[in-house]
Amino acid sequence: MAKEKSGERKPGTPTNRDHETIDKIQKLALNAVVAARTGKNPTVEIPVRALSNVQFNEDRRIIELGDRKASREFFNTSMAKKFMQTFLVANECRKLIAEQKTISIRQMYYKTKHTLKGTSENTFDEQAESDPIIEDVEVSIDALREELHLFANKRGLVVGQLTVDDAGDQIDLRRMGRGGWGIPSICEEDALKFVRCDAEFVLVVEKQAIWHRLNEDRFWERSKCILMTTEGQAARGSRRLLQRMSTELKLPIYVLVDSDPWGLYIYSVLKQGSINLAYESMRMAVPGVRYLGMSAMDFKKFTLSSAVQIKLTKEDLERAKQIRAYPWFAEKQWQREIDALVSNGFKMELDGLLTKDTSFISNEYVPKKLRDKDFLV
Amino acid sequence: MAKEKSGERKPGTPTNRDHETIDKIQKLALNAVVAARTGKNPTVEIPVRALSNVQFNEDRRIIELGDRKASREFFNTSMAKKFMQTFLVANECRKLIAEQKTISIRQMYYKTKHTLKGTSENTFDEQAESDPIIEDVEVSIDALREELHLFANKRGLVVGQLTVDDAGDQIDLRRMGRGGWGIPSICEEDALKFVRCDAEFVLVVEKQAIWHRLNEDRFWERSKCILMTTEGQAARGSRRLLQRMSTELKLPIYVLVDSDPWGLYIYSVLKQGSINLAYESMRMAVPGVRYLGMSAMDFKKFTLSSAVQIKLTKEDLERAKQIRAYPWFAEKQWQREIDALVSNGFKMELDGLLTKDTSFISNEYVPKKLRDKDFLV
Repeated sequence: MAKEKSGERKPGTPTNRDHETIDKIQKLALNAVVAARTGKNPTVEIPVRALSNVQFNEDRRIIELGDRKASREFFNTSMAKKFMQTFLVANECRKLIAEQKTISIRQMYYKTKHTLKGTSENTFDEQAESDPIIEDVEVSIDALREELHLFANKRGLVVGQLTVDDAGDQIDLRRMGRGGWGIPSICEEDALKFVRCDAEFVLVVEKQAIWHRLNEDRFWERSKCILMTTEGQAARGSRRLLQRMSTELKLPIYVLVDSDPWGLYIYSVLKQGSINLAYESMRMAVPGVRYLGMSAMDFKKFTLSSAVQIKLTKEDLERAKQIRAYPWFAEKQWQREIDALVSNGFKMELDGLLTKDTSFISNEYVPKKLRDKDFLV
Repeated sequence: MAKEKSGERKPGTPTNRDHETIDKIQKLALNAVVAARTGKNPTVEIPVRALSNVQFNEDRRIIELGDRKASREFFNTSMAKKFMQTFLVANECRKLIAEQKTISIRQMYYKTKHTLKGTSENTFDEQAESDPIIEDVEVSIDALREELHLFANKRGLVVGQLTVDDAGDQIDLRRMGRGGWGIPSICEEDALKFVRCDAEFVLVVEKQAIWHRLNEDRFWERSKCILMTTEGQAARGSRRLLQRMSTELKLPIYVLVDSDPWGLYIYSVLKQGSINLAYESMRMAVPGVRYLGMSAMDFKKFTLSSAVQIKLTKEDLERAKQIRAYPWFAEKQWQREIDALVSNGFKMELDGLLTKDTSFISNEYVPKKLRDKDFLV
């Protein structure tokens, strides 16, 4: 395939990065073929994705994978099937990239599932078998899932002072009505480009109903910002988009979650990544995000009524204790925050702010927090 | 408040329909006040929302509420609290409409929750208490939840041959990239207007990943249609939008779900409404929708491989039996379909069509089904 020169690529033809990914897959295959031909045992080196090989990088402030690798060998009865599966998946990814199509990881399971000729054995019996193989391919060739043209379900909406170009369509996020633009599952540079940004910051809201409240009050217009909801735990597309807004658009990013252990966890994953997906933190984590709220201190600070209090459960207390012990929450301000949550004995939802007034969050709460630089990092 | 003349309404001022809803709430209150002043027992008449008062209307092909009503009395120790709650909620709705704001039903719970003066008693202790009261207000004054300016979480995405005006923004659904426009929770005429439609039909897909597949293949462009995903069971916004596309745009609507009891149920709710929300079928159900697939017959018809087969569980079989007994599935073609599912012994997912080819669904499956008029109604 002929490679593009900058700006010359036709839509529907592979990008330079696509060619690099195909090359990496072909090198993986070539190594195995050469080994077989020279009478050696074909082998794939796969970085170990276990807690024992995960660490928190204090300098870069992200959770990342260590250097340990494991060998997957063809001539090894306990590994031969996985070896075959690895190449089945890698080959389908190569085809997807060449065809310029993207599919879900469930669809990849179907595409690679078939009965082996002359046997009753299936290549895969469950998606639970193919998902880890996809991760193996990702780490083996150091490519994001998105670069392999695979996606998990998308989630999240965005509006505000930004125009993007997505798959050739120019989209003005200032004119999205009440609906918002659905954040694509794949937010890589090849597919999604920033065209014009008039925003001074990004406000990320965990809950859709709070995003709706801020959008209906046109908070993003008055405050010159981009308003995003992750709709719960952030999906990969939302995380990658935020990372690009942070690094390419150089925008500060403020996060609004409920005041409870789950809210802290959502923030934590946005900021430094997760243990399970440590190998992807470099492309997903956004170490610069700031925790704007809700804080356990907000109950007194904003003289909220007791109607907002929800008693902490035993599970909440256990989870808070775990989170308190994470090295990335070691700083004094975080220990104070988590201690206040526990000693209050109650959690609070952003929705609770409506006990003050329907638009209290848009007119008072967020503006005051921003004005006072009242956030945690 | 001064009422609008057609076309004269300023944004942010109540519409004619808003005024009607406010009038209905005020009439409810006035009746109670008059009763109290004349020494009678203030009463609200509430249609009964129980299975015993639900029926399938054969002519209109929707599930609807019967005529039975219950009285909620103020001077009745078992009813007094609910009576008070009913007016608390109705009053907050009236204020929301006047302010031209919309909130979630959880936020309504917070707005109406407080401790009664001089007691330790709360107006509401759980959202599980306020949600049914909201439904009471809806049926008592015959207004949709959306007319009360309340919403449940939104879900669903749309692209295709349609331009809409939403909250004053003109939105071209032909230029939404890969993300799609998020379907608002409230899709009433006041807020969402159809500006220009070049579509010949609507294709509704249960699963987001299949919607993505069809969107990436630009199926809606080639086939001149609107492409929507409900992302599972359809939320109220998606249902209402579909109903308006059916009645106002006069478009045929084709539904694509998995071949399993859950898929049949999703279709069934779109078509004739649900027993739980029978009082809203008139504004939500779309009796004209057509079941395009997946059909249990598709396994042979499209010579699919055994890789697509997922064994029916005991629960699947029980659910299929229940669905088979619904009066709206009494026609021969439906009995045949459900029998085929059961006798196959397996269910199938739309994702399974990728075993043929990545774009088989866009290039072969859907076009052939449409060409052959191969659908159920």
